[in-house]
Amino acid sequence: MSEQTWSEFLSRMRELADLTHIGNLMGWDQQTMMPPKGAAGRGNATGTLAAIAHERVVDPRFGEIIEQLESQELSDEQRVMVARLRRDRDLQVKIPADLVQALAEATSTAHFVWADARQKSDFQLFAPHLEKILSLTSERAEHLGYEDEAYDAHLDIFEMGTTTKDVEAVFRRVADEVRPLLDRVLGSENSDKDLPTIPDHTDQLLAYSKNLVERMGFDMQGGRIDLAAHPFCAGTEPGDVRLTTRVDPNNPKECIMSCLHEMGHGMYQQGIPEGWLGTSIGTYISLGVHESQSRLWENHVGRSMAFWEGEAPRAAAAIPAWKALTASDFYEAVNRVDPESFIRVEADELTYPMHVILRFELELAISRGEMKVADLPDAWNEGMKRHLGITPPNDAKGVLQDVHWSSGLFGYFPTYLLGSIYSAALYRKATEDLGGEEAMDKSLREGLFEPLLTWLRDKVHSKGATLDPLDLINEATGRKQGSPIDIEPYTSHLRTKYQG
Amino acid sequence: MSEQTWSEFLSRMRELADLTHIGNLMGWDQQTMMPPKGAAGRGNATGTLAAIAHERVVDPRFGEIIEQLESQELSDEQRVMVARLRRDRDLQVKIPADLVQALAEATSTAHFVWADARQKSDFQLFAPHLEKILSLTSERAEHLGYEDEAYDAHLDIFEMGTTTKDVEAVFRRVADEVRPLLDRVLGSENSDKDLPTIPDHTDQLLAYSKNLVERMGFDMQGGRIDLAAHPFCAGTEPGDVRLTTRVDPNNPKECIMSCLHEMGHGMYQQGIPEGWLGTSIGTYISLGVHESQSRLWENHVGRSMAFWEGEAPRAAAAIPAWKALTASDFYEAVNRVDPESFIRVEADELTYPMHVILRFELELAISRGEMKVADLPDAWNEGMKRHLGITPPNDAKGVLQDVHWSSGLFGYFPTYLLGSIYSAALYRKATEDLGGEEAMDKSLREGLFEPLLTWLRDKVHSKGATLDPLDLINEATGRKQGSPIDIEPYTSHLRTKYQG
Repeated sequence: MSEQTWSEFLSRMRELADLTHIGNLMGWDQQTMMPPKGAAGRGNATGTLAAIAHERVVDPRFGEIIEQLESQELSDEQRVMVARLRRDRDLQVKIPADLVQALAEATSTAHFVWADARQKSDFQLFAPHLEKILSLTSERAEHLGYEDEAYDAHLDIFEMGTTTKDVEAVFRRVADEVRPLLDRVLGSENSDKDLPTIPDHTDQLLAYSKNLVERMGFDMQGGRIDLAAHPFCAGTEPGDVRLTTRVDPNNPKECIMSCLHEMGHGMYQQGIPEGWLGTSIGTYISLGVHESQSRLWENHVGRSMAFWEGEAPRAAAAIPAWKALTASDFYEAVNRVDPESFIRVEADELTYPMHVILRFELELAISRGEMKVADLPDAWNEGMKRHLGITPPNDAKGVLQDVHWSSGLFGYFPTYLLGSIYSAALYRKATEDLGGEEAMDKSLREGLFEPLLTWLRDKVHSKGATLDPLDLINEATGRKQGSPIDIEPYTSHLRTKYQG
Repeated sequence: MSEQTWSEFLSRMRELADLTHIGNLMGWDQQTMMPPKGAAGRGNATGTLAAIAHERVVDPRFGEIIEQLESQELSDEQRVMVARLRRDRDLQVKIPADLVQALAEATSTAHFVWADARQKSDFQLFAPHLEKILSLTSERAEHLGYEDEAYDAHLDIFEMGTTTKDVEAVFRRVADEVRPLLDRVLGSENSDKDLPTIPDHTDQLLAYSKNLVERMGFDMQGGRIDLAAHPFCAGTEPGDVRLTTRVDPNNPKECIMSCLHEMGHGMYQQGIPEGWLGTSIGTYISLGVHESQSRLWENHVGRSMAFWEGEAPRAAAAIPAWKALTASDFYEAVNRVDPESFIRVEADELTYPMHVILRFELELAISRGEMKVADLPDAWNEGMKRHLGITPPNDAKGVLQDVHWSSGLFGYFPTYLLGSIYSAALYRKATEDLGGEEAMDKSLREGLFEPLLTWLRDKVHSKGATLDPLDLINEATGRKQGSPIDIEPYTSHLRTKYQG
């Protein structure tokens, strides 16, 4: 290997990582700290940074360096760094600059139109913008290329190596398994017990949630928690991971559960080896794997009885209005299945998969030319009826609810359910490795989260972006490489919880 | 004028402004929000951003564009945009890249050494690093060039157009005027009344200070206030200005006074015309003018009796421990002259100029080769004795107190006193224009700060960087262009307050 070529590669790779760091900070700041009048200046600066990053990555010299290194003797670590960078670079090189520009402009306008359309519950306002965006993302898919169908290209951006065929098969089986569980739960005497509202104790709720996250292992020396309108986790390096949450006195469990969810994302980032800082492998591997971490802590830990047996006394002591609540009260509240579950981000564990499957079906029909944008509202409502037996009262609570399409994120939704599926497989294997269900429950009950976190650090976080998503999950769960996605731990988890 | 050349100039100028925006945000975040473990990643990203900004500004094509435009017909506004950009670019082009690199490395190390040396009060630890930095800044001055002496080049970086000769003359006269006032105040029965400490009410103090700043006209829709170890004001555009303060229960007036000081800086930024966003004139003109704004609100408003006559009841109502305090109590506390004034940033209005003059004398002696780094501690202590009649108990409270030299900011200190001098001239003229002293005091007493703010907007803020510093002050104060710095309003202000 030519030392000089490698060193040029390293410094260019680090520069890209630094530009990503800066973009992350700007995005976080915009949603948490920036005063309203800062929007114009920030918009300009964000555009400039994106243009510089694009210019740097597509620089032909960078392509030459990568090609040179690919034909040289490299260590395994070096080889995967080069491979990851080639993938990221190819994605950007294949898309013509004027298409990037057109998409940026279309989504920038569409975002505001969508917000307005959602507020007015008027899909017609948004439709022409969505048509424009979908025509541009379809053009993008053609440039990226695919084997079977265009949707493969969309999907591959977010979940490398997973095909439409894989997702179709997996989601169909999930739907078949969940449907009878839903019928059973919604047909029975469904508990409507929720946590008491806390109009006067939002500060205590936030303090409790922060303390919980810290006790569970999120490192506050390398992270922080702030408020934002829509909870998210920002940061791509282990030493600076920023969670956000929101505090709604009328829906207090949302603060706790969103903290656990974002904490899962955050712990993944904090567990990426520090030595890989600034390299193409010093980051997460896919959105599905990222979501497996958030869902694991949110659902398998935070919605378990064992966890609440340990946590209930602390939560009850922290919030005056909750002082009489027991573990069962918390457990029932966080596992309540809402028969009127219109909104994905507020959905319980059982209706959630159906929300994702609906979006996937619609995206696929659009991608295959079997459906037009104008048909989306009706198709949405029909799908909600079919999957969940309910009809949204309006488009704001239906087809207009998600921000993704207005941002050009077409092909993204499936990663949410893939993450849930992966989380169940990981949790089952961790439970096995850590002494079985009883031992695991005992740990959760006693507030000892370190064994589980250490297992995840070892099997998932410490891999950074060295393994492809499904390879990583297969390796972590002890399955043969090349095995297909395993939904059994996920459906079995839902059956255990909801079959009664 | 060639439209194409102008449009290329515009887009390059805007790119530089965006990179400045990003750098400001990163610096603010580092001192307010960044978790400790984020330092390594942030350090890399900051270095990368600086390298990109440097690369962009020194690009020879940019130089060609500027030269082309200089020989073309331009509007007055266009001409000054080009001139400001030439100045900024020349500063960066003249300094060789390896010198920039060497200074960045030297200061990066020196900062930590200085912090350690200050903590241990051991100048010897810091001395070799300071020698290195001063040799590099001296090299920088040679590259920048100067007419009379090297210190002119240092000074010109921070206060364009002001020479060593100007500063020497002005500071000598200030020292001559302040000395007898100091003798008088320190020789008399000096009040040692300060504000009662507030161990349990730091939240209330911060809330009161924020509210005060907002009432005085700082626009919270285009700004915010956070805590930081060392108060500062960040932001270079009107819509996003970030103030910081600190809350010390044992020294509560510091929070209020530092808020008023940073608010002055912040109002300057908020008053820069929005239409100039992203241009070389849409920014402040010099550090001296910036300091004139902070000092005006801190000293001339915040340390006046009229202000406290209006404000005392509100402050007393906000902080339980202050409920019995009168306007005189506040006035005396914020104007107390400390006979043991070792630290510049904590100094009162009367000892403050002497602190700056001492630093200027030492820098000048170093620049002229009349003093060595090894002589600094003794020379510092001798100067403190001469100017203030006191001897620091150790170097931590003496020569090691300021961060500036460790950051390569040599030639910066004089702008602090120039700012105080300008603030007095501006305040006198504003008072005249707004109906005289009685009318101005009435406004302050009634909490009506808008007339003064509007006057500053009109005479100072709205000028952005279109006028040279002294030209701006002369125009604002109604003096003939080309007039020298006028210290009379400043010394007269001090005499009125301290001659008794």
